[in-house]
Amino acid sequence: MPTYEILSVGEELLCGLTTDTNATEISRGLREIGFSPAFRQTCGDDRDALAACLRLALSRSDVILVTGGLGPTYDDVTRDAVAAVTERELVFHEETAARIRAFFDRRGRPMADNNLLQAYVPSGGEVLPNDYGTAPGIWLETGNRILVLLPGVPREMRALFQEQVLPRLTEKYSGAGCVRILHFFGITESELDGRIPPSLKNGSDPAVAPFAGTGEVELHLSSFRESEASAREAIREAERVLLADLGSYCYGADGDSLESVLVKRFSSHSLTLATAESCTGGLLSKRITDVPGASAVLRSGVVSYSEAIKTKILGVSPELLAVDGVYSEACAKAMARGVRDLTGSDFGVGITGIAGPEGGTEKDPVGTVYIAVADSAGETAARFVLGHGKGERRFIRHLASSHAIAMVLKAAGLFSGEKEEK
Amino acid sequence: MPTYEILSVGEELLCGLTTDTNATEISRGLREIGFSPAFRQTCGDDRDALAACLRLALSRSDVILVTGGLGPTYDDVTRDAVAAVTERELVFHEETAARIRAFFDRRGRPMADNNLLQAYVPSGGEVLPNDYGTAPGIWLETGNRILVLLPGVPREMRALFQEQVLPRLTEKYSGAGCVRILHFFGITESELDGRIPPSLKNGSDPAVAPFAGTGEVELHLSSFRESEASAREAIREAERVLLADLGSYCYGADGDSLESVLVKRFSSHSLTLATAESCTGGLLSKRITDVPGASAVLRSGVVSYSEAIKTKILGVSPELLAVDGVYSEACAKAMARGVRDLTGSDFGVGITGIAGPEGGTEKDPVGTVYIAVADSAGETAARFVLGHGKGERRFIRHLASSHAIAMVLKAAGLFSGEKEEK
Repeated sequence: MPTYEILSVGEELLCGLTTDTNATEISRGLREIGFSPAFRQTCGDDRDALAACLRLALSRSDVILVTGGLGPTYDDVTRDAVAAVTERELVFHEETAARIRAFFDRRGRPMADNNLLQAYVPSGGEVLPNDYGTAPGIWLETGNRILVLLPGVPREMRALFQEQVLPRLTEKYSGAGCVRILHFFGITESELDGRIPPSLKNGSDPAVAPFAGTGEVELHLSSFRESEASAREAIREAERVLLADLGSYCYGADGDSLESVLVKRFSSHSLTLATAESCTGGLLSKRITDVPGASAVLRSGVVSYSEAIKTKILGVSPELLAVDGVYSEACAKAMARGVRDLTGSDFGVGITGIAGPEGGTEKDPVGTVYIAVADSAGETAARFVLGHGKGERRFIRHLASSHAIAMVLKAAGLFSGEKEEK
Repeated sequence: MPTYEILSVGEELLCGLTTDTNATEISRGLREIGFSPAFRQTCGDDRDALAACLRLALSRSDVILVTGGLGPTYDDVTRDAVAAVTERELVFHEETAARIRAFFDRRGRPMADNNLLQAYVPSGGEVLPNDYGTAPGIWLETGNRILVLLPGVPREMRALFQEQVLPRLTEKYSGAGCVRILHFFGITESELDGRIPPSLKNGSDPAVAPFAGTGEVELHLSSFRESEASAREAIREAERVLLADLGSYCYGADGDSLESVLVKRFSSHSLTLATAESCTGGLLSKRITDVPGASAVLRSGVVSYSEAIKTKILGVSPELLAVDGVYSEACAKAMARGVRDLTGSDFGVGITGIAGPEGGTEKDPVGTVYIAVADSAGETAARFVLGHGKGERRFIRHLASSHAIAMVLKAAGLFSGEKEEK
């Protein structure tokens, strides 16, 4: 399969004002169609620096995707650098110019002339129309390389990449390749790695490789055969073997995330959920509502930082707070039950703990989190100690919200997909 | 000032499993001490690929920071690649080995022997002890270049970079440079750019450069003089000039964020806030509670997706919902007032709108958001239309939460720092 290289252009990236999420999205998309990443390069809005990066990329990778530098100002240098390196003229593209004018008309805004710079295309390049902005994408084949130019604005890049670039690349290298990503939670990378059958390890086809994320692990299954059908079959068989042993840790595949499977499976079973968060401060409901359609599942959430609110809104009894304390399974259970009753949801989840950096105790160091799930059958709760103490607030909060989603899915018998016996 | 280059190592990054937030943090930190970014490179866990990237970086940048590839497994190749490219031996570092053993002892976990691989250091390299993990950082001077090796785990990288690398680099290139970052909200990059005095534009010292983020703009003021004192003075004067015209849009400086200034200023004025979120689904309270110490400010938050909850918990009257509808300034005001009364906070903020992709109407297209702030004086509300419609859920939600924070700060007279007359 072809190798690819991403070239990210922009002073904002280099200075650290923005994080390069474009490269992440492109890599995930190409991974799923079986492309292998070679390198990534990032440079500022400098024509010569970009030209140097382009020459290097063209010397070693089959497909080069450039993001950014397609704007209308003097410091948008991608068109010029590509024209120079590929020795092409920049040609005025009338159709694109018309789209740019229309873009401003629709918004009733005057168009500065320099916007028409975005209508210039290296000769031989194909225009990829951009519905979200003024800079079109450009597809350019040079020798045995493919150069794809995409705007740097993430939502414009995403639309062009998903709707136009991925399909073209898939067709171009019509797939003897197949890749499947399995998502695991509740097991470490090293344990997962140790349980992959030797027959599926390095060099084999299908091959399985583990990748560790924040509290999660992915297994990437890849096969490249004479036909896509046989590659697909090989992946299916490997998946069967892996899940026979590890299925209880696997919550989803490919584009799934903990929050997306929660929304998908709860919707399809017409189940509802309400959240009561203390130390995660809304992160759990935020993650769930990142998913389109979440409103069918998440009735309501309560962020209860003060004990008064826990008592007043969630009905956690002052006695309980006095006896067990706010950091306890009892409190988490009361929060879960309280928010479930308050909202009439099928499930309630409660999180209370210490995200730090301050507030740790001997009994409950920073990172201690109590999570409970309430349903018609009652409550289940668990205590976690996350991270290595202070300085890990974000890490602790993220992991806590992940555990909460996993516990809810398990309580509903939906962690591993189709409804399980409880 | 010196140029630097970041070299990120890891298959996870290349495959898009993780986003390179390390590079962002390093860039921001070095920017603030006046270093100029040259390039960034990313490669997988491949010794030869990394060696090629190292040679290229050493040929063009003064300081090279490598993150990742310092783990204990065969696919952690950074130590080997650096030793090869710099022609050094790998030397066993007893002190580091002892720290690694102690790390496992503290956790009562057995140590696999391969962990001691992390105690090997290229000869001449200085060890930067790592309190959060087993892989130490390494500081290596070679010719007129500085090579800094850091672990890839973000929390370990962050601690080593902030506590040990930044101070060393600052001392090494003791600063005739000074950089100040001003944060603006509520003004576009092009308008801000147009209002920068020509005397502060390209090539001048101090120089001012605008950078656009998601709904925000930063101005980076930089000066490099014979002495740090005069550079600092030049920056102070430039800041005075800029803020005389643009101060009303400037909410903070350097490491500030909208949420961090909210927490800082509300705490110092002993003010409290409660949130009532619909379309942002907890993102607002999540952003606020990302900030350590937020519990002193954020009493409570309510995520009210269903009308029933708006009525039951927030006391939004069914009549109002029937007459004005859930997408209205009236509803936002009722939510803000309701959550303020419910929690007895000084301020309440309410957000209701349509984040999409579904649910837009003729009157209120996707991206329409109503935000209201309630305090002892009553409520203020505003209507926003954010993004360009479908496919921008994340963008719309982020901008909505940013506007909410800005409105709260303004209502409290704290948007531009010290208390203003209202």
